[in-house]
Amino acid sequence: MVLAIAESERVRGTTSPNPPVGCVILDSAGRAVGFGGTQPVGGSHAEVMALKEAGTKAQGGTAVVTLEPCAHYGRTPPCTEALREAGIKHVIHAVSDPNPSAAGGARILEEAGITVESGLLRQEVSRGPLRAWLHYARTGRPHVTWKYAASLDGRIAARDGTSRWISSETSRKEVHDLRAKLDAIIVGTNTVRADDPALTARDAGGMPLARQPLPVVVGMSDLPAGAKLRRTALHLRTHDPDEVLAALADRGVVDVLLEGGATVAGAFLRAGRIDRVLAYVAPALLGDGPAAVLDAGVSTITDAVRLTVEDVTMSGPDLRISAVPQT
Amino acid sequence: MVLAIAESERVRGTTSPNPPVGCVILDSAGRAVGFGGTQPVGGSHAEVMALKEAGTKAQGGTAVVTLEPCAHYGRTPPCTEALREAGIKHVIHAVSDPNPSAAGGARILEEAGITVESGLLRQEVSRGPLRAWLHYARTGRPHVTWKYAASLDGRIAARDGTSRWISSETSRKEVHDLRAKLDAIIVGTNTVRADDPALTARDAGGMPLARQPLPVVVGMSDLPAGAKLRRTALHLRTHDPDEVLAALADRGVVDVLLEGGATVAGAFLRAGRIDRVLAYVAPALLGDGPAAVLDAGVSTITDAVRLTVEDVTMSGPDLRISAVPQT
Ligand SMILES: NC(=O)c1ccc[n+]([C@@H]2O[C@H](COP(=O)([O-])OP(=O)(O)OC[C@H]3O[C@@H](n4cnc5c(N)ncnc54)[C@H](OP(=O)(O)O)[C@@H]3O)[C@@H](O)[C@H]2O)c1
Ligand SMILES: NC(=O)c1ccc[n+]([C@@H]2O[C@H](COP(=O)([O-])OP(=O)(O)OC[C@H]3O[C@@H](n4cnc5c(N)ncnc54)[C@H](OP(=O)(O)O)[C@@H]3O)[C@@H](O)[C@H]2O)c1
Repeated sequence: MVLAIAESERVRGTTSPNPPVGCVILDSAGRAVGFGGTQPVGGSHAEVMALKEAGTKAQGGTAVVTLEPCAHYGRTPPCTEALREAGIKHVIHAVSDPNPSAAGGARILEEAGITVESGLLRQEVSRGPLRAWLHYARTGRPHVTWKYAASLDGRIAARDGTSRWISSETSRKEVHDLRAKLDAIIVGTNTVRADDPALTARDAGGMPLARQPLPVVVGMSDLPAGAKLRRTALHLRTHDPDEVLAALADRGVVDVLLEGGATVAGAFLRAGRIDRVLAYVAPALLGDGPAAVLDAGVSTITDAVRLTVEDVTMSGPDLRISAVPQT
Repeated sequence: MVLAIAESERVRGTTSPNPPVGCVILDSAGRAVGFGGTQPVGGSHAEVMALKEAGTKAQGGTAVVTLEPCAHYGRTPPCTEALREAGIKHVIHAVSDPNPSAAGGARILEEAGITVESGLLRQEVSRGPLRAWLHYARTGRPHVTWKYAASLDGRIAARDGTSRWISSETSRKEVHDLRAKLDAIIVGTNTVRADDPALTARDAGGMPLARQPLPVVVGMSDLPAGAKLRRTALHLRTHDPDEVLAALADRGVVDVLLEGGATVAGAFLRAGRIDRVLAYVAPALLGDGPAAVLDAGVSTITDAVRLTVEDVTMSGPDLRISAVPQT
């Protein structure tokens, strides 16, 4: 399953609105003989890719897959069929398919005499590569990660507005890698005016990475004539987070990064439309300067948006805190 | 040494201006036969306490001690003498004495034919129980830990000023235990007016713990007539952190907790008089409300007070971040 998760991560960001599934085929002796990840929309599913590589060695073997194999005719024939035809005898999957039209794969496999085991490394998969897609399958809304970089005292810039490199080089590189795995990045019109960001995913040398997310700007006002995003971004003239998310879902977007600024972040928080907070906290104190979030709709302490910390790691000298709102 | 550190921790907060040293005596077969920690001022040093418990079993044995044994006649006779007389053959210490008048203990022991080993678990001791005292011995100033509790977005209260239980019960209990190990707690006059704190170290049932630090209020204005600290606190009418620290050093204070508010914390930061930051970060977002630190003298990002994170742990649901300013 660890190898299947790696396949899943490898194709993450290229499959929406389909889930980035990973699959490994083991032959009857337990040797890994085929690897596969979901192809871009219209292409093959992970199971089919892995079976293709395995060829006849799949006969009598095991398919290890991050998501329950699908049982329906969509843009591609059902994977349950492909597994049966290849002579697979066992299927191990991490997560069951929450999608009513695709679900039932496990039952169909069992009816075909294939043993099915579910739940192996479920949490790793459901918090990891399939997180956004599972959220989308449950709610119909893209999954929103709000990412920000701030000092230990919660400032995103100094008094004079300077913020360049508040976080470390390691953290900035991580963010570029993250961007390449997501479908869209949202910012507010003020951030465009203040920073003129390109919102591209770049490598250490500043060259654009192969996969680029859709840049999205939210707000009524026009973008400045020379702004980089003027030509590249989807500009949504609304203040309503749900309108933004609906417009993105229409475009097949499943996994969204909200990069700010504080006003737009506050609006998404108020609306309960932040599914994960990713804070890069630089070990520095500023004592002045703008805050990371404005007007989250909290006026007294009992209304605070309470989170649960999922994970804390160091990113170079910075803290990387991943937290999810309590429901 | 681990046992000696435990002895050191046990007496921490009771020995200032002397260091909270811990000592364990091993007999010639390596069995622990005596334990001791520094007694309050005028009382015996750790080595003498441990030798007393060991009695004649110390003959031919080893003394494991967190600090190099002292070689001078102060309020008590030198420990080097006591170790020699008890027939100790080996001394192992973690940290050398930075104090010129007390130092040289190792050399004197070696001249008496005792083997001396230095540096075992040095970092654990110098960052742990002897941290404040080593700072004081080097600089002549008490060591200042600035502690604050804030939300992930750096607010210490909500918009309406409410802040009760911004951090968890676990964190509040930790702070009470910490207070009991320190010599003094500093707050500004505004915090007294706003919160009327008692600044006592209490147990879970609200009963005062045995050891109480000296409460200190800093600022020109008089304290309100009914304020709890009016009867108990040392009120220093100054805005100068160095005057505060000098007045405390005069009173034998070595280890200080700065509890705020944001104005006084800013003043200490500007003056470079914060030696450690202890942040309890509650996983909550407020989006409004007062900040943890005000006017740290930083106007542009390159002037940020940069810290190095020493340690991050969970304190219940909260993050507990310990960081030291970069020098
Ligand atoms: N450190 C970081 O992680 C980070 C990340 C991003 C930005 N920043 C900084 O943040 C600053 C910009 O933040 P900001 O808060 O001023 O701007 P912002 O959130 O980027 O944009 C605010 C604008 O978005 C529009 N908007 C969209 N939805 C809205 C809603 N529901 N309610 C109200 N307005 C809405 C409004 O403009 P219209 O009038 O056009 O409708 C509003 O003026 C910049 O200085 C930038 O450098 C820092
Ligand atoms: N969450 C937490 O961890 C925490 C901890 C403590 C306090 N708080 C909150 O913080 C708030 C109080 O913060 P605050 O910043 O208003 O007050 P503060 O820092 O407690 O006190 C400020 C006052 O201290 C005096 N002062 C001392 N040294 C100074 C200096 N170098 N420069 C300027 N003034 C100096 C001044 O009063 P004079 O006019 O008397 O000289 C000043 O008005 C309260 O609401 C309290 O609840 C929160």
